[in-house]
Amino acid sequence: MRAKGFEGMTCSVADVMGALGDRWGVLIMRDLLLGLARYDDLKQSTGVTNATLSDRLRSLEAAGLIERRKYQSKPDRYEYVLTERGQDISLVMQAFVQVGDHWNVGNLAGPPLQFVNKQTGHPVKLAVIDSQLGKPVEARDVTVIAGPGADERVKWRLERNAGSPT
Amino acid sequence: MRAKGFEGMTCSVADVMGALGDRWGVLIMRDLLLGLARYDDLKQSTGVTNATLSDRLRSLEAAGLIERRKYQSKPDRYEYVLTERGQDISLVMQAFVQVGDHWNVGNLAGPPLQFVNKQTGHPVKLAVIDSQLGKPVEARDVTVIAGPGADERVKWRLERNAGSPT
Repeated sequence: MRAKGFEGMTCSVADVMGALGDRWGVLIMRDLLLGLARYDDLKQSTGVTNATLSDRLRSLEAAGLIERRKYQSKPDRYEYVLTERGQDISLVMQAFVQVGDHWNVGNLAGPPLQFVNKQTGHPVKLAVIDSQLGKPVEARDVTVIAGPGADERVKWRLERNAGSPT
Repeated sequence: MRAKGFEGMTCSVADVMGALGDRWGVLIMRDLLLGLARYDDLKQSTGVTNATLSDRLRSLEAAGLIERRKYQSKPDRYEYVLTERGQDISLVMQAFVQVGDHWNVGNLAGPPLQFVNKQTGHPVKLAVIDSQLGKPVEARDVTVIAGPGADERVKWRLERNAGSPT
């Protein structure tokens, strides 16, 4: 299923953003990745209205990122758990966190969240690594080329780039 | 400047998503990172309406991610270039691409875009590395703890997680 509104575009970015939906979808996924699961906790954490929260939970479920599970009957209460596909979003979330921490919009003394290596206790970070050498690559050495799945539109974008004076 | 609608939340995810705005903002940033710059190219690439494109370009400029530059007079024509802050978004975009390629929603023979190391020609990928050892860390060994900038809400989220049966 391609993301609504982006049919005909070969684009992984659009697929993932389509599954997340909007900023509320992103914040709900953040909370689920942090381990929150219950509707009331998600509501309290995001401060979102019931209508928006219910709607975004349905969208995330339809996109295959989360599953609804009943944890109590009479009254029925549900919690939301990440699917395998939903777990994949942790990479995106770490990228968001890393960039946002670097910007430090709120002028904090340090990051609100710290990702650490359980084995060593050291902080971890996302890095671009050479897939064959397994070593970090400098940002200036990274470039993008058309892959085997590139369609005409993707090739056009890359050609416009090559012809650009900037 | 904190992202509109998320005042009072100490959250880097919300800051970055607030700057991007919505999925159109994300797609425009994707194109700018690929090297497109001109209004007409952005319009053709995304297939967005003029009203939406103009609005999102203004938002991205207000968020400090892009700058507008006149490249022709009579009639005036503008192009859009990434600021340093805008360049930071490349990490988020690579995460989107990597997750979307893994999902392969379109059943492609391979990825539409390939990020490569200019020096070696090898594909590159995002990996979580131990910041002191410089070595990749397995996903199951990554955990998240409160950092020095954590406020009560962040700590509450993490405590809910620790108490969760899942």
